Amino acid sequence: MLVLRKPYLLFIGDVRSAVDAKTALGLVDWCPDDVLGELAFPRAALSTGKPAMSVAEAAAAGAGSLLIGIAPAGGALPAHWLPSLLDAVHAGLDIVSGLHTRLTDIPELVDAAAAAGVQLQDVRHGAWPRVTGTGRKRSGQRVLTVGTDCALGKKYTALALTRALQARGVPATFRATGQTGVMISGSGVAIDAVVSDFIAGVAEQLSPDNAADHWDVIEGQGSLFHPAYAGVSLGLLHGSQPDALVMCHDAGRRHIASLPGFATPSLPTAIEACLSAGRLTNAAIRCIGVSVNSSSLGEAAWRDYREQLQAELNLPVVDPMRGGVESLAQVIHHYNKESSHVA
Amino acid sequence: MLVLRKPYLLFIGDVRSAVDAKTALGLVDWCPDDVLGELAFPRAALSTGKPAMSVAEAAAAGAGSLLIGIAPAGGALPAHWLPSLLDAVHAGLDIVSGLHTRLTDIPELVDAAAAAGVQLQDVRHGAWPRVTGTGRKRSGQRVLTVGTDCALGKKYTALALTRALQARGVPATFRATGQTGVMISGSGVAIDAVVSDFIAGVAEQLSPDNAADHWDVIEGQGSLFHPAYAGVSLGLLHGSQPDALVMCHDAGRRHIASLPGFATPSLPTAIEACLSAGRLTNAAIRCIGVSVNSSSLGEAAWRDYREQLQAELNLPVVDPMRGGVESLAQVIHHYNKESSHVA
Repeated sequence: MLVLRKPYLLFIGDVRSAVDAKTALGLVDWCPDDVLGELAFPRAALSTGKPAMSVAEAAAAGAGSLLIGIAPAGGALPAHWLPSLLDAVHAGLDIVSGLHTRLTDIPELVDAAAAAGVQLQDVRHGAWPRVTGTGRKRSGQRVLTVGTDCALGKKYTALALTRALQARGVPATFRATGQTGVMISGSGVAIDAVVSDFIAGVAEQLSPDNAADHWDVIEGQGSLFHPAYAGVSLGLLHGSQPDALVMCHDAGRRHIASLPGFATPSLPTAIEACLSAGRLTNAAIRCIGVSVNSSSLGEAAWRDYREQLQAELNLPVVDPMRGGVESLAQVIHHYNKESSHVA
Repeated sequence: MLVLRKPYLLFIGDVRSAVDAKTALGLVDWCPDDVLGELAFPRAALSTGKPAMSVAEAAAAGAGSLLIGIAPAGGALPAHWLPSLLDAVHAGLDIVSGLHTRLTDIPELVDAAAAAGVQLQDVRHGAWPRVTGTGRKRSGQRVLTVGTDCALGKKYTALALTRALQARGVPATFRATGQTGVMISGSGVAIDAVVSDFIAGVAEQLSPDNAADHWDVIEGQGSLFHPAYAGVSLGLLHGSQPDALVMCHDAGRRHIASLPGFATPSLPTAIEACLSAGRLTNAAIRCIGVSVNSSSLGEAAWRDYREQLQAELNLPVVDPMRGGVESLAQVIHHYNKESSHVA
């Protein structure tokens, strides 16, 4: 598993737009206390709101890593960023990157990191244990966010649910399975980079044995209904052996993103498919609610949509961006109270 | 994809038993014309039946590769094998290996191969295209062997079915997804070595567009009911987009191999799960029969078992080792004849 060294100095360089700065803005949103400051070039188009900081200032303030918080045009690391990264390495900071380009493929950086004794953390290509799944039931409890498609709020829902549980005093840990999630939590694995023989085994390692009342909130990936990524989703589902699922859905999406030939499944179909597959490693699995990305709906339309869906599915329906995930946290909190009465 | 250079010189070194020589014996069984001879040490415990041949004799006879046909004790390449491999490299042969140990991790061999201009083919770790799945429907037809568990005859069934189709004049190609299959066919991919993001995409590449009456017979892997490997099985199923499935089963197996907590599914359950998942990329998918490993049953028990199962499932039931797979080939042949009547 990846373990990153916090707190971060956020590198946003010559960022052009909020879309490019998605990673940086996500970090400031979800782990603001882990971000000491930002390092921007003079022509940067925006600020994350964190104080401007040089590498030397960040190192003096105890930064553990410089984290590349922007997506460069074309995906590759621009040559004019390298001096900032080398400065950080020389100052004793690790470098954290989610780019396709590997830091470890840049000889100058590799040599400097070796000399300084710091890590180059390529989150997208990170290390993971080469273990196959065993199906052994683990102690503690787990909730996994699943979806009718990719990219519709599984990470956001898991983060919001973790926060809501912690606010209620329920012991909960966010478990990251994608690069931004790993950066936010400081540990985890980019599960889609794992060799397929080991998907379930790595997912098992990600949420180890824990206290009976503890909940791991596991970030889901892909969808059982995505023709390219269903294998990842199934391996993650089996290895996570969740007690509870939250089904994530985009109210405006009629087909799988970028694949017009593949209709998004109905929610009852998607829920039943996930429960059916999940029973292999946890017979007690149940769906505790639906998390909707309702950005395509006006306020009244969203209210109607939610009421209809709640009646149809007999489950709480939330949009984390429109009122939060309290009703999901309530279900889990209630389970814990029920269990402690029994115990 | 891997493409290997045939014909082979089979290296069996100091083989101790038929179990150790599984790969070599499989090759002699399934592609005897591609095996020129065997290279054994004086203390070898058995012969594959192929003529003894030195590296020089094999090279003179036109061998393309020395293929390591035995599993060494402990899994690693014994040092006393290396001189034979170096001889082969110097004689212009590629080396083909399915061991965990990578040939490309042995500097002496890497240097010699570079100097001789030959390939070191680590089948277990072989190259594959980094493409994600698209779900695009391809021309031609495909049959995939699936299973209630691992290691119960999916490769054997696919090879036997390919041979039976070809004997009937149906154009058919075996598509290998595991290391022994790749060695037999001379091309393919070890699908469990593919990074999980690319499973379905690689499976799509493995059985490309083809003539309308052509059948790819795809070697299945794992099982949707295996808690460690279901992700691989699902990605392969989606990417293969099979028109037909053959469900493989071991009549004597009560639980998933080495996992006593996981019962093998009933055949109707396993068939329905595979069809349901497979419909995502091919709505016309159907199961055309069941291939049973009946080695645990006596002759009379096998007849009863088969009759009961055929009546229950309304599908042909075969054991490739007990009477072959003719009834499966007949179903496929019949489809082709039906289609050509329509066309």
